This record gives sequence, C-alpha cells and structure tokens, in this order.
Amino acid sequence: MTGKLRGFAAALAVVAIVGVAATAVADTKLAPPKGYRQWFHVNTAIVTKDSSMFDAIGGMHNVYVNAIGLKALKSGGTYANGSVFASDVHEFSLDNGVYTEGNRKGVAVMVKDTKKYPATGGWGFQVWLGGDPTKPFVTDAATQCFGCHTPQKDHQYVFSSYIP
Amino acid sequence: MTGKLRGFAAALAVVAIVGVAATAVADTKLAPPKGYRQWFHVNTAIVTKDSSMFDAIGGMHNVYVNAIGLKALKSGGTYANGSVFASDVHEFSLDNGVYTEGNRKGVAVMVKDTKKYPATGGWGFQVWLGGDPTKPFVTDAATQCFGCHTPQKDHQYVFSSYIP
Repeated sequence: MTGKLRGFAAALAVVAIVGVAATAVADTKLAPPKGYRQWFHVNTAIVTKDSSMFDAIGGMHNVYVNAIGLKALKSGGTYANGSVFASDVHEFSLDNGVYTEGNRKGVAVMVKDTKKYPATGGWGFQVWLGGDPTKPFVTDAATQCFGCHTPQKDHQYVFSSYIP
Repeated sequence: MTGKLRGFAAALAVVAIVGVAATAVADTKLAPPKGYRQWFHVNTAIVTKDSSMFDAIGGMHNVYVNAIGLKALKSGGTYANGSVFASDVHEFSLDNGVYTEGNRKGVAVMVKDTKKYPATGGWGFQVWLGGDPTKPFVTDAATQCFGCHTPQKDHQYVFSSYIP
C-alpha cells in the first residue's frame, strides 16, 4: 500500500475518525503557512467520488514542502524541526475523462516539532477550511490526523515520497 | 470549455494531429529547462484512460511556470519573452478511487519568444520523452502543438489560469 500511496497527500488523512490509544489536543495556535504556494511541489493526488474517503478528504491534493523539509524528503534523512508539509486541497471537475483543478477546499499542514508534539510522532497537525485562518478544523490531532499516519511510522509518519 | 480547461496543462496538447494552415518546424535546439521542479506549481490535471486524448497525452500533468511567466499568469498581462511553462507529465495509478502520481512520462515546454516563433503565436514548443534531453519528440510544432492551442488565442494561447 505504501508504494501505491507514494504520491498521496502527506498531511491529509485528517478527517477519518480512527481510534488510537494516544490523544493530543490540536494546536489551535498554528496558522496557515505563508507562501506555501511558492514551496516545492511534492506531488498531487486526487481522491475521487469512487473512493470511500471522498466524504472525508475528497479533492485534488497538491502537496508542498518547505525548504527544511525538502532536505529530508530528498535525502531520506530525518525531518528536522521546522519541516512543514502543506496540502492544498482543491475541488476538481471531470469532463470526458479529464480531471481539472478547481477552487480551494482547504489547507492542511503537518509541522515537525518534537518538543511540542511528542504524542503525535513529533508532528503537529491542523486543517483550515477553505484555507481560512479563522476556520481551523482539527480539534483532536490524534484521532483526526495521526491515526491514519501511524502506519507510516517507518517513513516518519509521512505519506509522500520524493518523485524527481 | 475554457473554464473547464482552466486547470489543464498549458503546453501539453502536443501530440494531437490537427490540420492548420501555418507550419513551423520545431525548435530542436531547445533544451529541457533546468530547475523547473523548483518553479511555481500552476496546477495539475489528469488525462485518464476514459479520455479520447489518453493515447496522445494521457498522464498526470503537473504544470510549472518560471518567474517571468508567473508575473503575467497572475496579473493577466502579456507574457514577456522568456516566459516558460513546463508540464511535467507522470504516470498515475488508480486504486480504490484514488489517483496517485508515478514516474515521469515526459516534459513539455512552451517558451515565449516573439522573434523566434512568429508562426506559432510567439511560443516555441518541445516535448522530451521521459524528460530525456536526447529525446525531443516534436518535429512540427504547428501541427503537433499549436493547433490545439489556437482556440486559446484570447488567452495568449495558454490553457492554464492562475489558481491562488
């Protein structure tokens, strides 16, 4: 599954409610990262209406990483504190077999800070509906985010891989 | 159609053979632009197997633009000479309704130079199979590329629009 998910959004298995032992209140002080649209584009995935995940995370997921995170993404090394993945989730349309990108649905991030987020693998998570800083969605990062990332433990809880 | 194609690859209607009056030999001296993976990610589209264009341009099209082109893309102004769009075309997989990105199929560019490419709207076109600089694909930009871009004349022959 990991292979098939290599291009899958890093931070976006965010809404599925998964039971996990650990709990962690979401960091509501996080803000959408500025300038993420200028960051390195890691990959894109589309969760279509044919997916059981559509209600939770349907959309075109454009994943970006900041310069700190890019080093580890490329090298396979440890993500340093300050690494940030941003997944810019957009509507999509399907016309004669062609998927095209629409307006923004939301922005999700995972932010590496081993001191602040020990209960969720060293990553803080948040999602803003429509990308609006006043509309954080995640109230419990452990159940809403980290549960789905847990199987990626051997990959530092990140779904994305570097695609040259 | 323009609206539905707003997220469509700028440079990639490259292989469809369309009869047009003008002819223009492709510029085989063009080389794949260096560092385009670090450029601004404009949008992504997927031409699936359900599309009649699949044989010609099937794949996940990640479109990037250089700094010169980005100014016009954002402002709606005229693309200055030196503007370059690169479409990085990748294989994709479909698993339970989720499309994910695979390996590179090719790289296509459109390069603005009104003096060099008057017959094709001021844009030069080329595609490299697998992104390999030794494998240019386009031999006649007018029929292989520009024909499909002609309907976009009012949009400076560009399919992509700026999606914030």
